[in-house]
Amino acid sequence: MGIVVVGSVAFDDVITPFGKNLNAPGGSATFFSLSASYFTKVKLVAVVGNDFPKKYIRLLEKKGVDTEGLRIEKGKTFRWKGRYSWDLNTAETLKLQLNLFQDFSPELPEDYRDEDMLFLANIDPDLQLKVLKQVHSPKLIAADTIDYWIEHKRKSLLKVLKKIDILIINEAEARKLTKESNLCKAGKRIISYGPGSVVIKKGEHGVMLVSKEGIFAYPAFPLDDVCDPTGAGDTFAGGFLGYLSGLKSINEAAIRRALVYGNIMASFNVEGYDIKVLSKLNRAKIDKRVKAFRRVCSF
Amino acid sequence: MGIVVVGSVAFDDVITPFGKNLNAPGGSATFFSLSASYFTKVKLVAVVGNDFPKKYIRLLEKKGVDTEGLRIEKGKTFRWKGRYSWDLNTAETLKLQLNLFQDFSPELPEDYRDEDMLFLANIDPDLQLKVLKQVHSPKLIAADTIDYWIEHKRKSLLKVLKKIDILIINEAEARKLTKESNLCKAGKRIISYGPGSVVIKKGEHGVMLVSKEGIFAYPAFPLDDVCDPTGAGDTFAGGFLGYLSGLKSINEAAIRRALVYGNIMASFNVEGYDIKVLSKLNRAKIDKRVKAFRRVCSF
Repeated sequence: MGIVVVGSVAFDDVITPFGKNLNAPGGSATFFSLSASYFTKVKLVAVVGNDFPKKYIRLLEKKGVDTEGLRIEKGKTFRWKGRYSWDLNTAETLKLQLNLFQDFSPELPEDYRDEDMLFLANIDPDLQLKVLKQVHSPKLIAADTIDYWIEHKRKSLLKVLKKIDILIINEAEARKLTKESNLCKAGKRIISYGPGSVVIKKGEHGVMLVSKEGIFAYPAFPLDDVCDPTGAGDTFAGGFLGYLSGLKSINEAAIRRALVYGNIMASFNVEGYDIKVLSKLNRAKIDKRVKAFRRVCSF
Repeated sequence: MGIVVVGSVAFDDVITPFGKNLNAPGGSATFFSLSASYFTKVKLVAVVGNDFPKKYIRLLEKKGVDTEGLRIEKGKTFRWKGRYSWDLNTAETLKLQLNLFQDFSPELPEDYRDEDMLFLANIDPDLQLKVLKQVHSPKLIAADTIDYWIEHKRKSLLKVLKKIDILIINEAEARKLTKESNLCKAGKRIISYGPGSVVIKKGEHGVMLVSKEGIFAYPAFPLDDVCDPTGAGDTFAGGFLGYLSGLKSINEAAIRRALVYGNIMASFNVEGYDIKVLSKLNRAKIDKRVKAFRRVCSF
């Protein structure tokens, strides 16, 4: 099995209470691809400008990521500048330069269209719908979204939700999408919009999955030092879906384990700036932390 | 074994986004005692005025709580009025009438002083120190505190911390006490102040225990309907310490299970106003939810 991801490859300028990290590699598809690459074959669809360093693309390729779907165009790469609060729980966008991403219209290479799994990272829901028309019949489709689309493209987003299996969203977005303060109820309402399951990411508080079968919830892996939360959500999604994609069949026990792998991948990612930790992992390190996590929350 | 609790028995006037609950029975020692009564023998030390309905005291006695240490004095009972935010995560104090509680000076009845366990609920750290002088040598001493004492009685509070085994505190208080935003680090710093362990309560996000042996973390029990969070923290402490108090010996596995029992007791408490749910439980209902919780977070 393999997984196609459609999203952004970008530059991030990040300010945390502890320091700055400018001109860093980022974007939803970057974090997702790197994270998922430890478990499965990833096929990447995104666009960058010719200002984007080739070394990052080579890094992805070295991790086995198929970059046939990554278009390199003349112009500037998407850039996000943000600042985190003192407890690293919220990010304020200081500047957003869409650049080439403004006219991004994802086109899947022919051999991507038969892939088993698809992850629609946070992009305009109208583009997510466009991608959905190109794939043949993936066994599992997951999507992410953000505040902005919930507010400005609700109608298109609801169309996307009818066509996907799993929505991966953060706590505040789940509340905003459903106008429901209780997360269990918010999760159930999202399921009524279409997806069989919804994963609610709660940052330092872990993750919750709501499905027709019930609710699973896990704390985050406890960390003494969080450096940079940028990309944690996409790294989670990469670990979660990447792990599932690497399996022969998916059942409840597999989904529970996959959530834990997502959790653990995110915990690695936030320990360093941008993709620094994520690019130097191996399966043994990952499995070791999964084992440590079992010690944290079993009783 | 048994446990002595020193704290408040009070009236609460509570406003939630869904309704009002006025003249309700409340106070840290009330929630703690009721919760712990399902697991152990509780001895209560507090003060109320002669305006406090006898039926609530009879209810505590019916649950096996020893009320010899509950003084009933001429005058008015402590009263708290508060309003919860739309997501029930924060409470704003609208009015605080200390009344008789202002001159509360806890005196433990003679037969309380030899008890195995002691819980110092949230009261002035100087009074907590006074209680500590009265007890002989409990096997386990736990304490709670709040913002106000961290700000105004830091010196006395640090003296308390040197004499106790477990501090039970919420997330914001842990951060405030240590001036440390990372909760793992905050927990470790608190341990350096004296207690062997610190339990950090995170409301809807569950609970975390930091000790020299490591970190345990659990999500909260997922609930569709939260009615009134008042007393959840003390109900947690009652379940946690009550469960430990009911055991012959305490080891790591017991502490992990005790945290889950605390979690589950709090989950019951928030489902109804004041002590409504808490007063009508039984051990079978509690154990059933512990079992359901295992399904929520095992993998």
